[in-house]
Amino acid sequence: MIKAKIIGASGYGGIGVAELLLSHPEAEIVALVGVDPVNVPISDVYPHLSGYLDMPILAADDPKAQVDADVVFMATPDRVGMQLAQSELDKGAKVIDFSGDFRFNTPDAYCDYATRIGLAPDHLAPTLLSDSVYGLTELHRDALKAGPSVVGNPGCFAVSCLLGLAPAVAAKLVTPDSIICDCKTGVSGAGKKASAAFHFPARHENMNAYRLSGHQHVCEIEHELNLLSGTAFNVTFTAQVVPMTRGIMTTLYGTLSDTYTEADVLDIYKKHYANDPFVRVFPSDAGIGTAHVRGSNRCLLMVSVDERTHRLRIVSHIDNLMKGQAGSAVQNMNVLFGCPETMGLDRPGNYP
Amino acid sequence: MIKAKIIGASGYGGIGVAELLLSHPEAEIVALVGVDPVNVPISDVYPHLSGYLDMPILAADDPKAQVDADVVFMATPDRVGMQLAQSELDKGAKVIDFSGDFRFNTPDAYCDYATRIGLAPDHLAPTLLSDSVYGLTELHRDALKAGPSVVGNPGCFAVSCLLGLAPAVAAKLVTPDSIICDCKTGVSGAGKKASAAFHFPARHENMNAYRLSGHQHVCEIEHELNLLSGTAFNVTFTAQVVPMTRGIMTTLYGTLSDTYTEADVLDIYKKHYANDPFVRVFPSDAGIGTAHVRGSNRCLLMVSVDERTHRLRIVSHIDNLMKGQAGSAVQNMNVLFGCPETMGLDRPGNYP
Amino acid sequence: MIKAKIIGASGYGGIGVAELLLSHPEAEIVALVGVDPVNVPISDVYPHLSGYLDMPILAADDPKAQVDADVVFMATPDRVGMQLAQSELDKGAKVIDFSGDFRFNTPDAYCDYATRIGLAPDHLAPTLLSDSVYGLTELHRDALKAGPSVVGNPGCFAVSCLLGLAPAVAAKLVTPDSIICDCKTGVSGAGKKASAAFHFPARHENMNAYRLSGHQHVCEIEHELNLLSGTAFNVTFTAQVVPMTRGIMTTLYGTLSDTYTEADVLDIYKKHYANDPFVRVFPSDAGIGTAHVRGSNRCLLMVSVDERTHRLRIVSHIDNLMKGQAGSAVQNMNVLFGCPETMGLDRPGNYP
Amino acid sequence: MIKAKIIGASGYGGIGVAELLLSHPEAEIVALVGVDPVNVPISDVYPHLSGYLDMPILAADDPKAQVDADVVFMATPDRVGMQLAQSELDKGAKVIDFSGDFRFNTPDAYCDYATRIGLAPDHLAPTLLSDSVYGLTELHRDALKAGPSVVGNPGCFAVSCLLGLAPAVAAKLVTPDSIICDCKTGVSGAGKKASAAFHFPARHENMNAYRLSGHQHVCEIEHELNLLSGTAFNVTFTAQVVPMTRGIMTTLYGTLSDTYTEADVLDIYKKHYANDPFVRVFPSDAGIGTAHVRGSNRCLLMVSVDERTHRLRIVSHIDNLMKGQAGSAVQNMNVLFGCPETMGLDRPGNYP
Repeated sequence: MIKAKIIGASGYGGIGVAELLLSHPEAEIVALVGVDPVNVPISDVYPHLSGYLDMPILAADDPKAQVDADVVFMATPDRVGMQLAQSELDKGAKVIDFSGDFRFNTPDAYCDYATRIGLAPDHLAPTLLSDSVYGLTELHRDALKAGPSVVGNPGCFAVSCLLGLAPAVAAKLVTPDSIICDCKTGVSGAGKKASAAFHFPARHENMNAYRLSGHQHVCEIEHELNLLSGTAFNVTFTAQVVPMTRGIMTTLYGTLSDTYTEADVLDIYKKHYANDPFVRVFPSDAGIGTAHVRGSNRCLLMVSVDERTHRLRIVSHIDNLMKGQAGSAVQNMNVLFGCPETMGLDRPGNYP
Repeated sequence: MIKAKIIGASGYGGIGVAELLLSHPEAEIVALVGVDPVNVPISDVYPHLSGYLDMPILAADDPKAQVDADVVFMATPDRVGMQLAQSELDKGAKVIDFSGDFRFNTPDAYCDYATRIGLAPDHLAPTLLSDSVYGLTELHRDALKAGPSVVGNPGCFAVSCLLGLAPAVAAKLVTPDSIICDCKTGVSGAGKKASAAFHFPARHENMNAYRLSGHQHVCEIEHELNLLSGTAFNVTFTAQVVPMTRGIMTTLYGTLSDTYTEADVLDIYKKHYANDPFVRVFPSDAGIGTAHVRGSNRCLLMVSVDERTHRLRIVSHIDNLMKGQAGSAVQNMNVLFGCPETMGLDRPGNYP
Repeated sequence: MIKAKIIGASGYGGIGVAELLLSHPEAEIVALVGVDPVNVPISDVYPHLSGYLDMPILAADDPKAQVDADVVFMATPDRVGMQLAQSELDKGAKVIDFSGDFRFNTPDAYCDYATRIGLAPDHLAPTLLSDSVYGLTELHRDALKAGPSVVGNPGCFAVSCLLGLAPAVAAKLVTPDSIICDCKTGVSGAGKKASAAFHFPARHENMNAYRLSGHQHVCEIEHELNLLSGTAFNVTFTAQVVPMTRGIMTTLYGTLSDTYTEADVLDIYKKHYANDPFVRVFPSDAGIGTAHVRGSNRCLLMVSVDERTHRLRIVSHIDNLMKGQAGSAVQNMNVLFGCPETMGLDRPGNYP
Repeated sequence: MIKAKIIGASGYGGIGVAELLLSHPEAEIVALVGVDPVNVPISDVYPHLSGYLDMPILAADDPKAQVDADVVFMATPDRVGMQLAQSELDKGAKVIDFSGDFRFNTPDAYCDYATRIGLAPDHLAPTLLSDSVYGLTELHRDALKAGPSVVGNPGCFAVSCLLGLAPAVAAKLVTPDSIICDCKTGVSGAGKKASAAFHFPARHENMNAYRLSGHQHVCEIEHELNLLSGTAFNVTFTAQVVPMTRGIMTTLYGTLSDTYTEADVLDIYKKHYANDPFVRVFPSDAGIGTAHVRGSNRCLLMVSVDERTHRLRIVSHIDNLMKGQAGSAVQNMNVLFGCPETMGLDRPGNYP
């Protein structure tokens, strides 16, 4: 059994991993670490877990939290994982971090990211970066199989954009300067912390764009597109919130570099993802929405070509808490530890 | 493996069973039967099943639908199951019916039910009634273990009311004429068929009471309370809809027959359900809501005593499509076939 | 023109009054007072008001906030209005307070209320109580016309319960010990302040009961029922939240004191409210929901008699921010100042 | 008083006009015409109107429906208005039609529109086209003041796009081939008719793109942009539905033709709309969402320049049933009849 410790257990990222590991045949939870509250059963905070998971949430420095683990999920904010990772590695664990701390392989790339979004520019564990891998499994499966020490679990918007763009960018279907990512997310993407912006009456029957001057996920999108194509990409990215709990729908636009029909593109996309169990490709008239990925680790892509304007348009659907976060993390764990990639994740959600 | 056939596969009841059986280790789906559409893969109707369940929906008289099955789930309207059950029994299957057709053991009791709600009063398969069992497992587990031919799966409101009332009625905590069931349901309880009343704009930001003159689930509630207590119960029952997809919260009121504290009642309820894996009892200050049963087969009960007015108050929470329908059906299948009662059902839902 | 000052302007109660006064032909807003933020235009906090109301929110002690007013709306928490009222009265204003501070006419009654809900038991402006009136216009219109100094605007749940019960209690249709108030509210009733319980993901697709041990509105309900009937009433009261922004639906139950049909009760209710422009009475098969009072000052009542159980059942619908708060406040202002009672309030809401 | 008749009164478009005219000081409703049901008070269909508007819905050929009117609102589907307009004009009325029938001035332009979306290509009242005006007041105010016979009220998506793009296109800020309209709408845009796609459980917690191959509003957007610029525009247009009742948020993208800062663009937009009472322009960090236009006739625009990618980005917010439909219709009526443009429309909505 893979022994798993979850740091940041009481947030939505942590609870998502916990739910998945409860039905994972090869993993078991050995410790839960959090900040507020501590020393209460997690099922007091999340009563749906009552009887399924009643372990206490421990403070990070609680001796009981120092238990041996094979994998540590760090569902923590930026700049926390980089401070905690080394001590977990020293105890023999692999680390899967949910923040931006390990999404870039070099201190310079991290510095670029951190600077853009107003964080301190220095990485506090720079020596770990060279043995970290960006954890979008579909893009870095081989590197993950090699068993890096640290995985930088991707941002939820980035997952939706990169899975939608990767085949087009790899096949050079679109021109580099033409890409627009119009992203719409449910509210759980903002996490568990209450705030005026996510107070129910302020959010219900409301949609809005935010952080138009720059969102923290843009950097990793451009970085990965560059890796895929060998070309410098600058994308226009718009983050928007809609009154749902779960789900990201991203509409991706790019100018076609040549004449392609929808059938051509559909074929390229299906071939690209032929061996990716969680990505499925549909034509433009399929009746697909985010409801069809809710509670599932899948990404559903709709492919469309607007022949009048010579544009490729991809509509990408994920559950932001699954493929956008905890599901990807468990998928990465499976690859790291040699389990079948779909283990514990191979279920449709509940509909409706 | 238990071979399962689902009739009414394209409704919410049918799809709920299908989702559960896909991860059930001892069952497999052998045929799907429906009305509209037919001869298309069910995953065309429900794209979240794409790749998980791509069997076609067959017409009832399609030769391919006559496959051998061990259990037939009839997720069909009133008066359909009674016409189809015998032929399935003749082929050796057990039948679990989702309508009111087999919730009563005698033609007279059926007649009373049918008359109250405006159906034809005659049962079309009266000889089957004596070997049918009301499928609220917690109330009839032993009878289900005995392997009846037919199970009448309970109504969703009835599940929420009966699980909330059973310990109090069995222990005679409340006076027979004092019971009020104030029920609130999400919209999926009305099924998959579109209608003006459940059109999104008419339903969002709206709640209302309906069928004040009498709801079809009242009859089975009173029938079962009478069985539990040996006393004739008439309950006041109010059905209400709130703008959610899944979830029933029923608030149950009864005048206490003697002086009981909340602690007394809590103790009685916990003992009553000590061996029921899907029912959990909480005190009145627990932070429980329907979100904590969404996607789960559980019933969560909050127990309260209003000492100022000498009333017992129980708040009962279920997922109407799980414990209120498909989950109960699979639980019944487990008991009928000797599987562990929680098999394939032993998961919390996803939160949030 | 009636000069109006709003204290607590940046909360939902304050903004509700502001919206109504903007289209009131006989009133004008002269000052807005609040706590956080101050010295910014209210339209920065509520951009829908941009161009309609751009006055700054002032601190209570800002000299500009000392402007003369004819009426002061105090949309403030318990125990604030009692400290501020005298100084406004000294300047010649009438006070309409939104908290429990002036809902009871004697220090003893206040003490009972305050004690029940854990507030300090002493009233800080006891001499004002004798010239205050409980501001449910339909119950105290004559007293309001007499021009009291202070109006205690009623609690939102209390409005829904009292309007639903008043005709039955006045006509002694129901027995005193039999009344149950099952209340469901939208989330805006909890106000503007963000909290874990009202964070969108925690609230969407969730309903729950709360404060089962006692809600602050029970006391005024019982107090007013006693006044109506001359009998001591103890009611069982359940507060529940559903995932909507606006709307209260309360289902009221009482045992009939004699044999009455629905037609009898309908007749009694219609006569009772014949001269109340905001209350409308419907039979039990009317298709009424909270959507039909959203944005309106009306209360819609559905009348039902459950003849099997000899119970009266009334379903009462209001918009908690209108008839439950700001609408009642403006209605009270109209009566206090001799304007037609419906002035500025005589509009249906927008549907859907 | 302007006498108004509403055809299609029982749909959302018709009811929206009715609500607005009830508080319009210079207009009165003289007849309501509809299809299903007829000869019942409209307040039976929409109980929020009970006591405010209890006129019957009449069949189109009912003699009582032939009453004299000054203006006829035709809230009817495509190809109905063109059949009914002449007879209303003959009786001396102006016609404001809500469909695509009168959004184009020539039979050829209509033919292009109709062909693209699969309608019959011939206009049935071609002689009326030359005296019709496209009813987006902000673009054709002078032509509307001249008193045309017929107004083609604009499509809801088109309103959101055109108000967002007009200043940029008029000032040639963006290159003609670069425009993308990413539109998100609430469900009421689909009208009152129930359907599987808009059944509450299918829609709640779901968002999706639809009609990727071409939406009926694209044609009028391109037509008007061409008129504004004298250049042929082809836009990429994506229609998407989110789980709200009211509101459209459209994100508009265009490549800048030269170097402009956000301040430059903000200035151009504010000047462009200086005399348009219903359009307000905000910088990119304003906290604006669709909640701030709900129930209001306003369009709120957020202006952003993505300097990294040289793109203009405008986020446009309207209430699809107000500025997107009934509000624009009443605004057009005001201009046609010489009333102040904001009459009956000059209110913020209710928040929250």
